[in-house]
Amino acid sequence: MSPDQRSLAERTYPSPAPVQAPVPLAALAEGRILGHEGVGTVLQLGSAVRNFKVGDRVIISCVSSCGVCSYCRSGNPSHCLADEGASGLGWILGYLIDGTQAEMVRIPFADTSLVALPEEVPDSSAILLSDIFSTGFEIGVQYGRVKPGDAVAVVGAGPVGLSVMATASLYGAAQIIAIDLDDNRLDLAKQIGATHCINSGASDWKEQVFALTDGYGVDVAIEAVGVPATFEMCTQLVRPGGNVANVGVHGKAVMLELQKLWIKNINISMGLVNMTTLEMLLKLVKQEKLPVDRFVTHRFTFDEVMSAYETFGNAAETGALKVLISR
Amino acid sequence: MSPDQRSLAERTYPSPAPVQAPVPLAALAEGRILGHEGVGTVLQLGSAVRNFKVGDRVIISCVSSCGVCSYCRSGNPSHCLADEGASGLGWILGYLIDGTQAEMVRIPFADTSLVALPEEVPDSSAILLSDIFSTGFEIGVQYGRVKPGDAVAVVGAGPVGLSVMATASLYGAAQIIAIDLDDNRLDLAKQIGATHCINSGASDWKEQVFALTDGYGVDVAIEAVGVPATFEMCTQLVRPGGNVANVGVHGKAVMLELQKLWIKNINISMGLVNMTTLEMLLKLVKQEKLPVDRFVTHRFTFDEVMSAYETFGNAAETGALKVLISR
Amino acid sequence: MSPDQRSLAERTYPSPAPVQAPVPLAALAEGRILGHEGVGTVLQLGSAVRNFKVGDRVIISCVSSCGVCSYCRSGNPSHCLADEGASGLGWILGYLIDGTQAEMVRIPFADTSLVALPEEVPDSSAILLSDIFSTGFEIGVQYGRVKPGDAVAVVGAGPVGLSVMATASLYGAAQIIAIDLDDNRLDLAKQIGATHCINSGASDWKEQVFALTDGYGVDVAIEAVGVPATFEMCTQLVRPGGNVANVGVHGKAVMLELQKLWIKNINISMGLVNMTTLEMLLKLVKQEKLPVDRFVTHRFTFDEVMSAYETFGNAAETGALKVLISR
Amino acid sequence: MSPDQRSLAERTYPSPAPVQAPVPLAALAEGRILGHEGVGTVLQLGSAVRNFKVGDRVIISCVSSCGVCSYCRSGNPSHCLADEGASGLGWILGYLIDGTQAEMVRIPFADTSLVALPEEVPDSSAILLSDIFSTGFEIGVQYGRVKPGDAVAVVGAGPVGLSVMATASLYGAAQIIAIDLDDNRLDLAKQIGATHCINSGASDWKEQVFALTDGYGVDVAIEAVGVPATFEMCTQLVRPGGNVANVGVHGKAVMLELQKLWIKNINISMGLVNMTTLEMLLKLVKQEKLPVDRFVTHRFTFDEVMSAYETFGNAAETGALKVLISR
Repeated sequence: MSPDQRSLAERTYPSPAPVQAPVPLAALAEGRILGHEGVGTVLQLGSAVRNFKVGDRVIISCVSSCGVCSYCRSGNPSHCLADEGASGLGWILGYLIDGTQAEMVRIPFADTSLVALPEEVPDSSAILLSDIFSTGFEIGVQYGRVKPGDAVAVVGAGPVGLSVMATASLYGAAQIIAIDLDDNRLDLAKQIGATHCINSGASDWKEQVFALTDGYGVDVAIEAVGVPATFEMCTQLVRPGGNVANVGVHGKAVMLELQKLWIKNINISMGLVNMTTLEMLLKLVKQEKLPVDRFVTHRFTFDEVMSAYETFGNAAETGALKVLISR
Repeated sequence: MSPDQRSLAERTYPSPAPVQAPVPLAALAEGRILGHEGVGTVLQLGSAVRNFKVGDRVIISCVSSCGVCSYCRSGNPSHCLADEGASGLGWILGYLIDGTQAEMVRIPFADTSLVALPEEVPDSSAILLSDIFSTGFEIGVQYGRVKPGDAVAVVGAGPVGLSVMATASLYGAAQIIAIDLDDNRLDLAKQIGATHCINSGASDWKEQVFALTDGYGVDVAIEAVGVPATFEMCTQLVRPGGNVANVGVHGKAVMLELQKLWIKNINISMGLVNMTTLEMLLKLVKQEKLPVDRFVTHRFTFDEVMSAYETFGNAAETGALKVLISR
Repeated sequence: MSPDQRSLAERTYPSPAPVQAPVPLAALAEGRILGHEGVGTVLQLGSAVRNFKVGDRVIISCVSSCGVCSYCRSGNPSHCLADEGASGLGWILGYLIDGTQAEMVRIPFADTSLVALPEEVPDSSAILLSDIFSTGFEIGVQYGRVKPGDAVAVVGAGPVGLSVMATASLYGAAQIIAIDLDDNRLDLAKQIGATHCINSGASDWKEQVFALTDGYGVDVAIEAVGVPATFEMCTQLVRPGGNVANVGVHGKAVMLELQKLWIKNINISMGLVNMTTLEMLLKLVKQEKLPVDRFVTHRFTFDEVMSAYETFGNAAETGALKVLISR
Repeated sequence: MSPDQRSLAERTYPSPAPVQAPVPLAALAEGRILGHEGVGTVLQLGSAVRNFKVGDRVIISCVSSCGVCSYCRSGNPSHCLADEGASGLGWILGYLIDGTQAEMVRIPFADTSLVALPEEVPDSSAILLSDIFSTGFEIGVQYGRVKPGDAVAVVGAGPVGLSVMATASLYGAAQIIAIDLDDNRLDLAKQIGATHCINSGASDWKEQVFALTDGYGVDVAIEAVGVPATFEMCTQLVRPGGNVANVGVHGKAVMLELQKLWIKNINISMGLVNMTTLEMLLKLVKQEKLPVDRFVTHRFTFDEVMSAYETFGNAAETGALKVLISR
């Protein structure tokens, strides 16, 4: 699950949201610079930075973390306890501190919040690892416990849902079933790794999934929209013993039908990306094993940032998936 | 999660419940013999039985299974597909076929639905493995992913909740926090393995848990009652990155506050016991490593079965935990 | 690790070998029919068989198992305790009982030793799952704990080594480095999934591997030959914290340099295939996700069986990889 | 596996040993202060230290690590790549840099190489977590994959072997079988958690183990001496599908009988402790769930350090297990 799924436009006025449990809700400060994804070059170093030098090319992790606190050490840097002002770390870029939609950005705890970017990987590929591929893989594929031979349904073929589809084969999924209302997105899904596509506008979308999976449903159902209806679709699609992984950012409570589901031995996961797999995913990008080059559909300079927002805001018309802003 | 948690009295008129996904709901047939737990002696063998002989002492698994279908082979015999009449197997004893509250009972697929009982283990210990210890361990401790050093809260100190507490140390829990409204049950919890007891009638029950756990909440919160209120207690008690395991049998849907929880990286599990750990637990009982002898509080003969039901039905007064009926 | 790796010619006079620990060594009985791989049609059923009917197309597992004993239930059917004559089961086909190089073969415990074969999968693909793909995947990839992003070296590009390479991507290997003396085999390796090929005749084979892996060596080194020299190559190639998986059938003891290796935090695995992944691999074959069609290089009828042996015996000249014998 | 197992006397003249693969062998520098275990109070802080302040009570990890490099982040800080002089980190205390047998010691990368010690835990308990309990648990119990119900044999009842026995129940071992030549050590083993003790001087030591384990051997055999004979004992004791964990520091190569073992599906692990469980073990010590108070048998001041060495050197006579030196 990733902050990325709120559209850029929405992010201009985010609703107050908790970064982590012990931290009180925070509204976006007036004038805050947005953006939590980015690729750049190191211009200046803090005194405690050991692993980077001026001029290094880097990927910015959307989650900042100290590497030392109990949450970082137990694999949950998205709940990092190190303080940056009044809060802990985690997702703070473009939210509690100024973000990446700017010519320069300060990254706290750089040793653990940046990753060195090798020359052969272009910016437009690396940017995908800054949030959405990591989110799709960690919160969708890993939390969903995808394993070799699995049938996996992904409800929602937006950028993060597509990232799930693009990484599900890293654990050997046999079937990757893309479900969305938009046929253009479904076409893209197929190019990116989906083995089957189902338009959820069809009255028999559920029967289609069951027909593909011997009548028992999928091993893993992954929610990548963030609304109650798609969550419920997932609990209906999952077979006994299977997993439901929430990747979508939810704004409302959902009904969980425990009276029906308790006996199904299913598992429901959710979360903010920890970015612990960024370096690993970069190895796969270097070997050209991930279809990162299909995601950036539009490029703009900083001068054109308003056009960038407009293009992204009208994704249905423009076909925008990820919009790259550079100097 | 276990069928056991419905009281015996309730089980006389069970509400229609699905055994597994593909099977239509079934009402309890008129005259059905109840009971899914039992210890006994083999009197007669079906022609396909290879591993038992007449006279063998056995524990009856509350889940019947074939050992061969895809669900059995993938560790989910509670969803066994082998047919016994119109249904699959799984929990069918005392529900879809006649059960164990009788002098004799037929056990289908005996090779995979019975476990040989060594002489040194008495009936009153072995009976706990027929359902509740396996349920507490598999659906509470294993599904809850308890690991060494964890703080574990168990909401509900009935027989199954106590079984969770008695087995949480098998994965090295550091703190086992029993939460219940009944101080007698909490006393028992302490004898059985709880390190801390909290009466949930206190207005500060939640603060007490947080005070015990550095202010972040427990690693694993285990629901062992089966109502919405206790499920919500669990989602409040669990720390970021933690697990909520439902062991209770739920009769109603619950509200799942995904808008607050998505960012907490928690995991929610549920299920019917698979009984795959019965033989393992028996090894621990043989080594006297589990407090099974604390659970049978009353003993009756078949002649006294109505008194048994009465005693169990008034558990609050009689202090009944498990009631043993024998010849 | 698989019995398959001894060449067919060798198998005519196999050296005495233990099937499992408690069983005394057995020499091959005079007149024993060889062969432990096969695809066929059910002609006749034993009285206890529930899941197959006459006419069903099936894959024969090279490991026979009961599905019920403690080894079968704990995921180790290669050490099945059920008796078939004086021994347990496991690898007995073509060794302790007559095997598959015949028009008909009896398969004990058919429900757990055969897998139904769907119409759309041809014999020449299915036969690979009867032993070598399962062996490569279970004993190489799974025992070697390959995980997404890993660098994997496979020493030996024979049929089983190639099966390792063909399945390593099921856990997301980033680099699959094939190492062999034969350039033809290395060419084939590349077609089947290897990302890099190194001829171990080169004096700098080791430096080449280290150059590909940042100077630390591979995450997983897989031995697929079965001699001490290749085992030692693997312990040299593995990085600290990595895994060495033996897939080769070894005929001699090896020196294990614990005085150097203890501090490297490595793990060494070995074993006979359990065939627990056969059905899962079949799902992947149905989705055309495994390159099974590259393995059968020659086809013969039973009349030509001596030519088949000759072709396979001269693999270096004939390029034989797997030789299919059919009616 | 832990540097601790070399006796203090031996450590005065250690043989050259690699810290990690890429580092050339190093001899102990003239005048090096020995000692890699310790508990103390922070006197002074380096400029980059964030998480400690002067006056804090701390446990010193025997492994120093940066928390940031790829080895630290993948759970292998014993192979930390951060440089301290010419080497990486890992086990450098009392070896490549001055150690803890002194009134004061400098700890590099304090944030990740020290753990805060709560007031209620006495020095004599905390010191056990500085190396040996972590070693026994990580390299013995975790690498050996001990799981609930397992039969575990520990060959060698020295301090680290006893630490294995004291922590094997954290994963629910049913049987913990202590094997040693010294009956006094075996007595102690029983007090610390062993369920059975076998003197390996008996000609039937192996038969005794098999009699305790249904004739198949143990699930996990843990080597805690460091010589070829005890390694071979372990490969003989382990059942098919089981694990051999080396905790001992080996000085010689061993013969690994792959020609017999390949078909047994066993796993062999080894390694230097990573200290990733120190904080977790401390939680268990706070709950009085580990028998740490049984290990310190003698106490000395720094003035008496020669007597301390003598006492430890004659452990057979003095019964010394761990010797505490304090101001």
